[in-house]
Amino acid sequence: MTPYRSIEGRDGVVRMLDQRLLPQQTTYIDCTSHEEVSEAIRKMVIRGAPAIGVAGAYGLVLAAWNSAADEVASLKANLVDAANILRAARPTAVNLSWAVDRVMARISSADPATVRKIRDLALCEANTIVQEDVWVNRQIGFVALPLVPDRATVIHHCNTGGLATVEYGTALGIIRTAHECGKKISVLVDETRPCLQGARLTAWELKQLGIPHKVIVDGASGHFMRTQGVDFCVVGCDRVAINGDTANKIGTYNLALAARAHNVPFYVAAPTSTIDISKSNGDAIPIEERPSYEVDHFAGQQITPDDVEVANPAFDITPADYITAIVTEYGLAYPPYQNSLAEMMEKAKRHRASLQGSEA
Amino acid sequence: MTPYRSIEGRDGVVRMLDQRLLPQQTTYIDCTSHEEVSEAIRKMVIRGAPAIGVAGAYGLVLAAWNSAADEVASLKANLVDAANILRAARPTAVNLSWAVDRVMARISSADPATVRKIRDLALCEANTIVQEDVWVNRQIGFVALPLVPDRATVIHHCNTGGLATVEYGTALGIIRTAHECGKKISVLVDETRPCLQGARLTAWELKQLGIPHKVIVDGASGHFMRTQGVDFCVVGCDRVAINGDTANKIGTYNLALAARAHNVPFYVAAPTSTIDISKSNGDAIPIEERPSYEVDHFAGQQITPDDVEVANPAFDITPADYITAIVTEYGLAYPPYQNSLAEMMEKAKRHRASLQGSEA
Repeated sequence: MTPYRSIEGRDGVVRMLDQRLLPQQTTYIDCTSHEEVSEAIRKMVIRGAPAIGVAGAYGLVLAAWNSAADEVASLKANLVDAANILRAARPTAVNLSWAVDRVMARISSADPATVRKIRDLALCEANTIVQEDVWVNRQIGFVALPLVPDRATVIHHCNTGGLATVEYGTALGIIRTAHECGKKISVLVDETRPCLQGARLTAWELKQLGIPHKVIVDGASGHFMRTQGVDFCVVGCDRVAINGDTANKIGTYNLALAARAHNVPFYVAAPTSTIDISKSNGDAIPIEERPSYEVDHFAGQQITPDDVEVANPAFDITPADYITAIVTEYGLAYPPYQNSLAEMMEKAKRHRASLQGSEA
Repeated sequence: MTPYRSIEGRDGVVRMLDQRLLPQQTTYIDCTSHEEVSEAIRKMVIRGAPAIGVAGAYGLVLAAWNSAADEVASLKANLVDAANILRAARPTAVNLSWAVDRVMARISSADPATVRKIRDLALCEANTIVQEDVWVNRQIGFVALPLVPDRATVIHHCNTGGLATVEYGTALGIIRTAHECGKKISVLVDETRPCLQGARLTAWELKQLGIPHKVIVDGASGHFMRTQGVDFCVVGCDRVAINGDTANKIGTYNLALAARAHNVPFYVAAPTSTIDISKSNGDAIPIEERPSYEVDHFAGQQITPDDVEVANPAFDITPADYITAIVTEYGLAYPPYQNSLAEMMEKAKRHRASLQGSEA
């Protein structure tokens, strides 16, 4: 059992572990409106594509329960507004709009309905997303297990653990499953500038899980591949285009380039919820530009000279050509990704249909 | 004229600008013994291969003048001890031992001598190294000028400006010369973790020089090459093996890998003093492992969980194969570097001989 929860929804409150303060402080923030949830996502109180998807879903639940609307049409109008606010909180990770859209679709499917029914359906769908995320993470860990050699040294970028998801993690879930299955895995943790998700969050999770690790600066990955050998790299993702191009935390592409130069396999852990079938390639994925203070300040203290210009793209695109395999909850996708990702999406669709069948 | 000096030796004091506190504080530290100079080098009060070479030379001058020895043999024995202490302060940059060795050689050449003569020679050689460094930097800037397209966007790693040298800079000197010659150059400044020489020092120098620049995290270089285009990368070096393999600040190799993947020229600015003819390739160059607090703390504040393990190599090796050209004060060296660097060393030797001829 993971001894921390990134997010929980209960009794009209969405409680989030404030990841900006970890590992020095374990502080929880309670959101009681969708505006507060949106702000928490934007400020990175909660981050990680799957986790912000769940936050978005719970944000809609709050909007549904807080609305003073006493008829279906006006409640739905309120929810459309709330959904727009939530989707706009962060643009790159597709899970956020995916989860918001799922809740909205679930509500629509209940047409005609009562206000009470809509509120129940929103909560029900959000809870389903939470349960699915736990299952998806576990699946990804098992799907990738054959890829992990015994006594592997692996480089991991950003944070993709329980903090980035509901409970178990995606790329870090692969590492965790391998560890729990007795493979002696050790992790070189990219610190992940500018927000240091690796040094702060991944190191914190690995420590609690008892998995050997060392923190390195992002620029050192090639050095370690060249001098000590690295068995594979594994990262999560915020959005995958149908050709396999992958948006993930800035620095991922440089890691992939280093991996290619050293013939180190480069794996992306991608729940099918992060695959965006509306995007034919990575250039169509919007890249969020974050505020300069993430780069020119640390913990309130200025690093750079006054008024320095900063370019701070939060994500980069790793072209599909650099990705050895994409690990989904329905199996391993290999190039050409147009075909293999389509197959995974088809499996996801059949799986959902079978679940709906059993519900009916 | 550069409005700041990394180091000055005068009246029995070696004064250094404390680069650990820049750009927030402009504080000078006065060293009055070779032990204090060694400590300042080790703690990175002063850094940059050429600058620490000068510091080492002045450290020996202090040792010579502070020694209570009243006969030549005991003074020389004192200086051998001081030289060992100074050389050991940092292991990777060859300029430190190169400069210390030069002062020691100059002293030996005066055999037999008086104590006073030895002291004068030490000071004279240290001053010569300072004057040469200024000339070498200017030469490197002019030698590289034909490589710089007009309106170039360039990525620069670490700091190689006036702060890393005596006055003008090596790789940053190339940028500065191009700017002063009217080429509209703009710089993407790698922040250069862990010690942030880019964000703190290079941004500070570029601002004072009026050269357009933006600070980026080290992991973003590939992203900018892929999305907006970069004309070339330029870095300094701490040591170059005779085959062209180059030791430089950690992160340099990852930048070179990104450059190769995008067919971006990758230039190394290398005074011939950084070429180590005793090293056949980069694997023979010692890589300094620095304390973990550079990675797990910032300005006294802890980033990581308690007791996290850190791997903090201060440098990496960029294999010669990834270097488009090496810019020396005697011209451009192209692959195969065994030949071209040998030619540059030969030119340096002839130049020194001609200067000694004119002195005699």
